Formats: sequence, C-alpha cells, structure tokens
Amino acid sequence: MSLFDRVTLLSGGVGGARFLDGLARALPSNRLKAIVNIGDDFEHLGLSISPDLDTCLYTLAGLGDETRGWGLRDESFRAHERLGLLGEDTFFMLGDLDLATHIARTRRLASGERLTEVSRAFAERLGVRVPLLPASDERLRTIIRTKERGEEGFQDWLVRHQAQGSLLGVEYRGEARPTPEVIEALDEATLILIAPSNPYVSIHPILALGDVRERIAQKPCVAVSPLIGGAAVKGPLAQMIPALSKTEAGARAIAELYEPFLDLLIVHSGDAPTVGFERGPIVRECDILMRDPEDRLRLALDVLRIAEEIFTP
Amino acid sequence: MSLFDRVTLLSGGVGGARFLDGLARALPSNRLKAIVNIGDDFEHLGLSISPDLDTCLYTLAGLGDETRGWGLRDESFRAHERLGLLGEDTFFMLGDLDLATHIARTRRLASGERLTEVSRAFAERLGVRVPLLPASDERLRTIIRTKERGEEGFQDWLVRHQAQGSLLGVEYRGEARPTPEVIEALDEATLILIAPSNPYVSIHPILALGDVRERIAQKPCVAVSPLIGGAAVKGPLAQMIPALSKTEAGARAIAELYEPFLDLLIVHSGDAPTVGFERGPIVRECDILMRDPEDRLRLALDVLRIAEEIFTP
Repeated sequence: MSLFDRVTLLSGGVGGARFLDGLARALPSNRLKAIVNIGDDFEHLGLSISPDLDTCLYTLAGLGDETRGWGLRDESFRAHERLGLLGEDTFFMLGDLDLATHIARTRRLASGERLTEVSRAFAERLGVRVPLLPASDERLRTIIRTKERGEEGFQDWLVRHQAQGSLLGVEYRGEARPTPEVIEALDEATLILIAPSNPYVSIHPILALGDVRERIAQKPCVAVSPLIGGAAVKGPLAQMIPALSKTEAGARAIAELYEPFLDLLIVHSGDAPTVGFERGPIVRECDILMRDPEDRLRLALDVLRIAEEIFTP
Repeated sequence: MSLFDRVTLLSGGVGGARFLDGLARALPSNRLKAIVNIGDDFEHLGLSISPDLDTCLYTLAGLGDETRGWGLRDESFRAHERLGLLGEDTFFMLGDLDLATHIARTRRLASGERLTEVSRAFAERLGVRVPLLPASDERLRTIIRTKERGEEGFQDWLVRHQAQGSLLGVEYRGEARPTPEVIEALDEATLILIAPSNPYVSIHPILALGDVRERIAQKPCVAVSPLIGGAAVKGPLAQMIPALSKTEAGARAIAELYEPFLDLLIVHSGDAPTVGFERGPIVRECDILMRDPEDRLRLALDVLRIAEEIFTP
C-alpha cells in the first residue's frame, strides 16, 4: 500500500480548484478524490448555486476563465443584464453559460437527486474524471457576522458587501452530515491533502460535518498554506485572521487553524520560520504560488514528493 | 359613452399579439386592455413559462423577433446549448434574454406575487402601457389528446411533437378562476374583441374560466378570423378544425366556435360567402393579413371602423 494509493483532497474554490487541477495531472483519476466545500452554496433568483463545486468542475474541465479567476471562459452576461432590466437583484454575476449549470442543478435537485449525484452527472457530461464530492448533500451555510450588518450569508458578505465591515464571527449553520461518499473517501484515504483554500470559509465548513475531523486525524494529513508571507493570493483571508483568530496573518495562524490533526504544513519559500509552533505540524517550504497551469502540476508534484519524504519510512 | 371607451381584447400569442400591437397604436392605452391566454403556460426545467403573455409583452415592447415570429430580437442561445450539453431536455428553445424573463417570473411567483402582478411589473419595466392581464392567476392547462400518444401538454404536442398524430380532443384542465382584473376588464368593456388567435387553444381556455362566457355575452363582441380561406396564417388551426369540430376549416367554423355570444365576425376579403350560418354573427370582410407593423394598425383601424358601423346607431 503506497501513500498515493488513495489521495483525498479537501478543497474550496479558486486556489483549491487550481491545486486540484495540478493533482489531477499528477495522479491517475482513480487515485484522487476531492471533497468540496458547500458552505458557500446559496439560493439566488430561485436557483441553487454551488460556487466551489462549479469552480472545481469548470477548472478540471478546462473551461474556467483563468484571467477573471471565476466562472467560464468565453462567457457572456446577456441574461444577467436583462434580469437587471426586469428589476431582479444582480449582485452576483451569472453568465449565460454558467446559468445553464444552475438551472440544470436546480432542476435535478428538485427531481430528488442528491447534490452528489448532480455533481457526478455534470462531471461525466463535461469529461471530468476526478470525483468532485460535495461535503454534504444537506444544507450547511457559512454565516458571517459583522459589527455593521449583523449576520449575513457568505455571498452577501463577500460579493454584495465586498467583505467590508468589522468581522465578528463565522458560523456554519445547518444540520448537515457528510455524505457516505465523503466518509468513504476519508476512510479509504492513504493521504489527506488540504488545498490552499481559506480555512474559515472553505475548509472549516467541511471539518464541521459530523466526525470528519476525527476521521482525518487517523490519516497522514498535509495542508498547503493559502498565504504567501502574510498575504492571501486571492480573497479576504489575510484580513480574517486578525479578526477571527486574534493573531497575525501568516503561516503560524494556518498551522493553528488545522491543529491538532495536521501532520505536515507546506508553506511558501521563506515562510517556515514564521510558523514557530512547538506542538504543531512538521513544516516544509516550496514555491506555492500557482501563476499558470504548469505551476499547478509543479506544486502538486512538490507536495507529493515532500509528503513521501516525511511519511515514507 | 362611446363604443371605444373601454376596449377589451381576448388574445393568444403571435397573431393575437400582432393585432394587439395594432390596437395599441390605434387607441389610447387607458382605453385598451388585453386578457391573455394562459392555457399554454407550462413548467420547464423548473421555470414557469407563459408563452402567450411573453409574446404579447415582447411585441408591445418592440422587442419581438418579427422574422422568426416568436421570442426576442437579437436573441442568443448559449445557455440553451449548454443545457443540452449537461443533459437537459431542450425541446423548447430558450434564448438567453428570454431566460431572464422566465427566471424573474419564477422567482416572483415563488415569492408570492400573482401572475397578474408579475405581468404588470414586467410591462412597467419594459415600457408597455397596455395592461396585459393573464386570464387567470391559477393553473389552467390545455391538454391535447391524440390517438398515438394519448394525453400531453400543449407544448409537448405543438413543439416537441410538431402537432403530429391524430387529434382526438382538447381539454382545459384546472380549477382556475378569472382574476378580479379580468372580470373588471370584461364588465367595464364597451367593446370586446377576439384576436385572430386559435379558438381551441388560445381563446376557449379563456372562455372556460368561470362565467367569462356569460359576461362576454352581455357586450358587443367582435372576432377577427384567424383563417384566410381555409388556411391559418401560422400554427395548426386548419388541421384542428376537421378533427375537433367535424367540419371544414374556414370562416364558418370560426363563427360556430364563438356561438352564441359573437355579434360580428370579421373575415378576410372574399371569405364572407363561406360563412353561411343563419343564426350566426354579422359577417364583414377586410384584409386581415398582417404582413408588417403597418398592417397591424390598418387592421385595427378597419376592425374598429366596421364595429362602429354595426354597433353605433
């Protein structure tokens, strides 16, 4: 049994999807599964939207817009504009092609399919062979609390209000359980990876489900830091750490956020000394910035190589 | 009180919408209301679609595609294609701009608005001043029965199966009642017009609601024939008449279908002799073919002029 027999990744959207894309090039598809955050999912204009699942799907299908960083390439926004003309709330950009995903998902869910089945069908249709497993088929919602606006859904906070306001707390609301597919992916795993995603809003919502945290603790677990120095490549993570963890944004905060189940933390070149966390994970460095698809593969191979050095006797 | 103080039109989609457009140019908007068929409405991919209301709305807003005869001008079908790729049923063409209408309608209905309120909001947003009143806010469905496929919804019959098969019957299913707005439009009417629409699937579903038929019988009522000779300008009417009314397709069949409440039937030049229906309506001729927007206004003015000759002492 090799360390890479069954690799299970926990992932959010953009950064996670890119790392997943690298892994999908580095490993055969029957050795890799992704458990994807659903805490960002929301209902908008009657449509069920799963941003992280879609970003992973589009990225693996080679359909993602690399420049914009979200949504589909060659996208258009004609329906979106018309929705605005008709008086609908257009805070969340919905492309014409992207709309098809949301309409199809909403239709399938209403017909009784589980989100897991919907994701499997979409992956098959778009030629994606790595299983993209929603963390749950049930409803879990990341709720953000700010001093100025009180509680609001994640997309309201991030997109409508551009993550503005004094952050007071993050909560995962709902009675959601991990799916049988998620439990299987964790239990069969020979290695668990945590993508360079936002711990608070991408990874913790997965860890909050049932005994996911305990199951991960049984396995070799490697996280890739989402920070370079004290800054996030994308998104509001750097401002969230001081507000939510009362500590400086940096690799040490990431190590603490994945305590005590994390065995190995991979940080950006030069960031290891900033961890300094006695009872924490082993820390290794490499270039974690993914500028282009080649970087994704390189990072995936680096992470697997470092994991092998650490975990293989 | 003049005959044209309050004109109420009963209308279906394409032909009805064009005649309505002519009337909207001929009469001030505060003297004209349209009661629009909802028997063709259906749910598709989770969206509430009201084809006749939309055709009337788009036509009056000057947004309709005149060449294709349905949907919006400068339409694109990117979401539609992608829906097909994702395995969705694409028998019914949904343009990107048109989708916005259906998404907004579905969202508004789910939020508790009546279809009447939704239609009013859309009209306001698109600058349409003539009230487009759905015949009902409740569900009425035109069901078609054929020898080959049994019962099916109207759109399945017309669009999916191209009106093929031996037609056995048409039925209007549902406990729908006319709205208060429809009853008001009928009761205040100084003249009721029936558009050159398909009697079976556009006008009869309106007449089937509550006591609409009796209310119309109290008023001067003028219908414009949807046939020229024995042929329909568009749609399956000519083949429906022999199957459903056991008579020849022609102006006489139209007179019979609006018996006994119709006072005046306007048929195409040369078609009057084919009526020959002793206890039927008065019959007058004019050029009823609407080739372009100018024809619509001309026909509306002709119809109003003939009605005035007949009903004004």
